[in-house]
Amino acid sequence: MQSITILGATGSIGTQTLDVVRANPDRYRAACLTTNRNIELLADQIAEFHPDLVVVREVRAAEELRRRNPGDVEILVGDEGLLRAATYPDVEVVMSAMVGFAGLVPTIAAIRAGKRIALANKETLVVAGELINCLLKDLGGSLIPVDSEHSAIFQCLAGESPSEIERIILTASGGPFRELPAEEFARITPERALKHPNWSMGPKITIDSATLMNKGLEVIEARWLFDTLPGQLSVVVHPQSIIHSMVEFIDGSVKAQLGLPDMRLPIQYALAYPERIANAHPRLSLSALGTLTFFEPDTGRFPALRLAYEALERMGTAPAILNAANEVAVAAFLDGTITFTDIPRLIERALAEIPVRDAPTLDDILEADTTTRRTVRSYTGC
Amino acid sequence: MQSITILGATGSIGTQTLDVVRANPDRYRAACLTTNRNIELLADQIAEFHPDLVVVREVRAAEELRRRNPGDVEILVGDEGLLRAATYPDVEVVMSAMVGFAGLVPTIAAIRAGKRIALANKETLVVAGELINCLLKDLGGSLIPVDSEHSAIFQCLAGESPSEIERIILTASGGPFRELPAEEFARITPERALKHPNWSMGPKITIDSATLMNKGLEVIEARWLFDTLPGQLSVVVHPQSIIHSMVEFIDGSVKAQLGLPDMRLPIQYALAYPERIANAHPRLSLSALGTLTFFEPDTGRFPALRLAYEALERMGTAPAILNAANEVAVAAFLDGTITFTDIPRLIERALAEIPVRDAPTLDDILEADTTTRRTVRSYTGC
Repeated sequence: MQSITILGATGSIGTQTLDVVRANPDRYRAACLTTNRNIELLADQIAEFHPDLVVVREVRAAEELRRRNPGDVEILVGDEGLLRAATYPDVEVVMSAMVGFAGLVPTIAAIRAGKRIALANKETLVVAGELINCLLKDLGGSLIPVDSEHSAIFQCLAGESPSEIERIILTASGGPFRELPAEEFARITPERALKHPNWSMGPKITIDSATLMNKGLEVIEARWLFDTLPGQLSVVVHPQSIIHSMVEFIDGSVKAQLGLPDMRLPIQYALAYPERIANAHPRLSLSALGTLTFFEPDTGRFPALRLAYEALERMGTAPAILNAANEVAVAAFLDGTITFTDIPRLIERALAEIPVRDAPTLDDILEADTTTRRTVRSYTGC
Repeated sequence: MQSITILGATGSIGTQTLDVVRANPDRYRAACLTTNRNIELLADQIAEFHPDLVVVREVRAAEELRRRNPGDVEILVGDEGLLRAATYPDVEVVMSAMVGFAGLVPTIAAIRAGKRIALANKETLVVAGELINCLLKDLGGSLIPVDSEHSAIFQCLAGESPSEIERIILTASGGPFRELPAEEFARITPERALKHPNWSMGPKITIDSATLMNKGLEVIEARWLFDTLPGQLSVVVHPQSIIHSMVEFIDGSVKAQLGLPDMRLPIQYALAYPERIANAHPRLSLSALGTLTFFEPDTGRFPALRLAYEALERMGTAPAILNAANEVAVAAFLDGTITFTDIPRLIERALAEIPVRDAPTLDDILEADTTTRRTVRSYTGC
């Protein structure tokens, strides 16, 4: 029986992690659950899973939760609460599923506390990959990716030698605007951008999928997860999202991991690794699907992917600037403050204007994040 | 430096094995080469690779080879020569690449002599899978598949637990008659059947690909190579031959191995395993290919696949009968004695009429082979 902390329990990955816990009550126990402000859902989760500890963002939310009389669960608030959940003594695995940069500090705390990390939070490795890798190496810690692409790569590398990797090929659905002419991009509304063709995900990552920044962040993440050079990381657009990613080896052999788009699979893989758990999820039938297609990504219409490669080549705090600029820009787009094409434009400007610091410490990264957010907000006038 | 015996050095797999030896002179040495009767090519191979021993089928061929003054190579003849090559003292790896049932006895001899087997000869496991597996288990021997499909499955299983296999999915090109209407099958000529859309192979296996018997034999082979039940083995038609085969695990995750159709890759994988050797072969580009398609196999037009499953369910000497009937029928088709649709018809009749013996010894298998050949020849009137 493994006790789990879920950082971001009420989000898309969090609730699907609880699906896996529900389906495997003899294997997993949800010991700590955290949410930003979804008190309603958290109260339901407390009633069903009886965690030891829950954490909410604000004091008022905690008070509201207490009024609902949730039993003897401990309720904590804010960063202190998150750190407690991330380092909770009984817990073996921390599912890091908070959205955005906010996931970084609690994930580092969990690694320092010797927890095994199931990593769904992209930004942790994007902004602090080198730092995290050093920490994992020093402490002998382990981190299993949850993103379907990185889980695919991780699975393809089972039993293989990392020195025999020639190239990692991330697949991208291409998002809802894969075939949209360039001149229509400026008129894309948040409503249209929030309709992903294959995956049901949170709003931030859905917009990132529409700009292809999601794939850019994944390229940076892959660089740290699999210790590869930027030139070894490539992207192919695969609209059906059936091949979740691939690895090409030095002999030209390519291994791929395939499946129906269902995040419960990489989630349970990360929890159960190195075992696999039998389940009754629907199975992939390639003959029922009939056709898989593949295209080169178009960095003309989707400059975010190019910007991510540039930040990866530049290194230092450049990925942190890229990420913070993207978070602010996506929020401004969802608020209706900027257009869809402004998103990469603001990121490019931030990368050009904000000084990059090399070999950054955690404080340097936090500062780059804060500076970038302030700067990009000033661009948007918010 | 590894010394290799190539049983069937002048065939398609044999010559491509020598391509790999040629490309890796610091790793591999061709110590023993055998051929049925292709003296011309064998003489060239002697001049280039300086083997210690060569073996030809007939005394007259050996005499002709000696007249060509090939230097100080030892020249042996017939079964005795094959056994000597299969068990040659210096040799570590035996590439078993003879065509048909004839490969069985020398392969068994090589296993008994403690050689590692690179297995390209399908019939060995088809007719004697249980026996071979017992032998490998008793002697702690190892056998690496060379068929692109089984190499793919073997690669997908690296780092995975065999008990977590749910299903093995062999891909089939569907052959040149994938889209041919049923009523035209009786008029298929050997010339048309010998034109495979993706792979350049020997005539026997090319006809087997056209009838889908090749896939049926591979299903039986997979049953023994990966210790699975017949119900765990499925076939999907994939005309591009890019996905070489797949494994579905108990959690629904599917792993696939992909590559351009080039037998040098599985050959060098089998020789180098568990390492991979860097090479400059052309690389797969899915975006350049654009589309991969998948279909259910049609056992109405291709009854050979159904017959193979029936022989696998029946077990005992049934696969040996299937195989011998197929070898005789394919030879008769190539001679122009029977039609394309007669091939599965004769096999079905042989399976229905020839008694099956359970838990067969090697002698039982040899006898089933002899009996079946005689019987099926009597059907064709040859």
